[in-house]
Amino acid sequence: MLVVHGGAGNIDPAKLPEPLSVYETGLKTALSEGLGRLEAGESALDAAEAAVRAMEDNSLYNAGVGSVLNADGVVQMDAAVMDGATGGCGCVTDITSTRHPVSLARAVMEQTKHVMLTGSGAQRFGAAQGLERIEPSVLITEARRAQWQRLRDGQQIVRDHDTKGTVGAVALDRGGRLAAATSTGGMANKPVGRVGDSAINGASTWADARVAVSTTGVGERFMRQCTASRLAILMELTGASVEAAAQRVMDELGKDTGGLIAVDRRGNVSVCFNSSGMFRAWGDRNGLREIGTMD
Amino acid sequence: MLVVHGGAGNIDPAKLPEPLSVYETGLKTALSEGLGRLEAGESALDAAEAAVRAMEDNSLYNAGVGSVLNADGVVQMDAAVMDGATGGCGCVTDITSTRHPVSLARAVMEQTKHVMLTGSGAQRFGAAQGLERIEPSVLITEARRAQWQRLRDGQQIVRDHDTKGTVGAVALDRGGRLAAATSTGGMANKPVGRVGDSAINGASTWADARVAVSTTGVGERFMRQCTASRLAILMELTGASVEAAAQRVMDELGKDTGGLIAVDRRGNVSVCFNSSGMFRAWGDRNGLREIGTMD
Repeated sequence: MLVVHGGAGNIDPAKLPEPLSVYETGLKTALSEGLGRLEAGESALDAAEAAVRAMEDNSLYNAGVGSVLNADGVVQMDAAVMDGATGGCGCVTDITSTRHPVSLARAVMEQTKHVMLTGSGAQRFGAAQGLERIEPSVLITEARRAQWQRLRDGQQIVRDHDTKGTVGAVALDRGGRLAAATSTGGMANKPVGRVGDSAINGASTWADARVAVSTTGVGERFMRQCTASRLAILMELTGASVEAAAQRVMDELGKDTGGLIAVDRRGNVSVCFNSSGMFRAWGDRNGLREIGTMD
Repeated sequence: MLVVHGGAGNIDPAKLPEPLSVYETGLKTALSEGLGRLEAGESALDAAEAAVRAMEDNSLYNAGVGSVLNADGVVQMDAAVMDGATGGCGCVTDITSTRHPVSLARAVMEQTKHVMLTGSGAQRFGAAQGLERIEPSVLITEARRAQWQRLRDGQQIVRDHDTKGTVGAVALDRGGRLAAATSTGGMANKPVGRVGDSAINGASTWADARVAVSTTGVGERFMRQCTASRLAILMELTGASVEAAAQRVMDELGKDTGGLIAVDRRGNVSVCFNSSGMFRAWGDRNGLREIGTMD
């Protein structure tokens, strides 16, 4: 079982640089990448990472290549992974020259005793691990540069909800293991150094023996609530279903804050959002089961 | 009501650079600074910040001046604050040239729409806010440089539990508001860019209408558990007392992971640790009520 998202927000299809069908193709590709791993007997973590890497490689999504620019006109990315089988997690912030931040987060989790690395230290570690580097300029698309110039001239800092947002995936493998991964370029024209929820397990990303969660939206709201871990603790302490727990945390956050995807250990899926749209898809051994962008 | 801590760990008084009484004097000074704010009618947030600033200024504690050095021989600090009255929080990571990281975290909370700023962007923001800058070299004490050289030669990365650790404070003011603050130099000889729990509300630092929490110890363990928010949610969902919730999260973490301080809205205090010692003190309008270092 695999669920992917490509961001939530007040999406106006007329303002998107590409038709919705092109975004759907990206979701399908990511889903297919992850499902292929599960079919091959790989872990939930492998599947979630593979799906997120596919969206980092897709220049239409706000992660990896095609990320939004910060106030200095630089791509500055965050990512997090969590492995429900071990309780381990890895988080990276302020990444400017690693091609796949989600894989860097995984390396932090698996190859260090630490949880979070930031900035040049994180990238130095990634290079030592042999992770693919990328020229910062190659991360920048023409569409993103134009968007940034427009925002900069208007002095606006915005979540990228008018186009598309953060990406994430949650997975359940045959062994019953759960995993979650999230990756983002953050808010367009954000102040240099601003870190959002996507860098923080507990806020955007959570996986334990019960549930895996990945969020997208107004990151600061999710950080204040610790949304992803709150959803998991609600299930743990109250016996709530994944659907009920997801609805509760999103209701607490209030209108137009974003959305989340979650899967529990029995394969129950929740896709919950309170903005006008959320790009998402999910599937299982039978392939794609559902795909959506707007309501 | 104010509680302060100066770190938990397997403390061997014989190995400390100063007698325990000197550390106690530092705790008393911090407590007195914060209690003075509460007596003057200032907020819990003012009190918690003032107490932590006093320990950042004390070169014996691992925060601000006298922080441990990272693998590059540089002081690299983290801090977080949370205001239970508003649900707001501010977090900073990878700070090398701001004198009081706790005040920078507060400025992020109060003067931006963001929750977390990292590195040079955070410090640029602090300078624009008029926060005091400090030469990175001035943060380094002779004792810390000697410690670093010893660790570097032995290729060790250690939590600073053999000397003293992270600092933090939780406060309850006359208006019933709760606040928490945490500040640290992290682990001695840590990899460049490693961020610990002290930078993350939810992990080290939490305040809502019910409870305020600040943790210290093996940061990665607290990050995986989301200790501070977990304690708060345990109280919210199960009706547990602050003491019971604190004991539960520390029991879940297991032996020698560190400790925490917490205060609830009625002024009940919890000081809970599973290592050999924890530097802490608490008091109220009658002044110092309790101070301790070892069991």
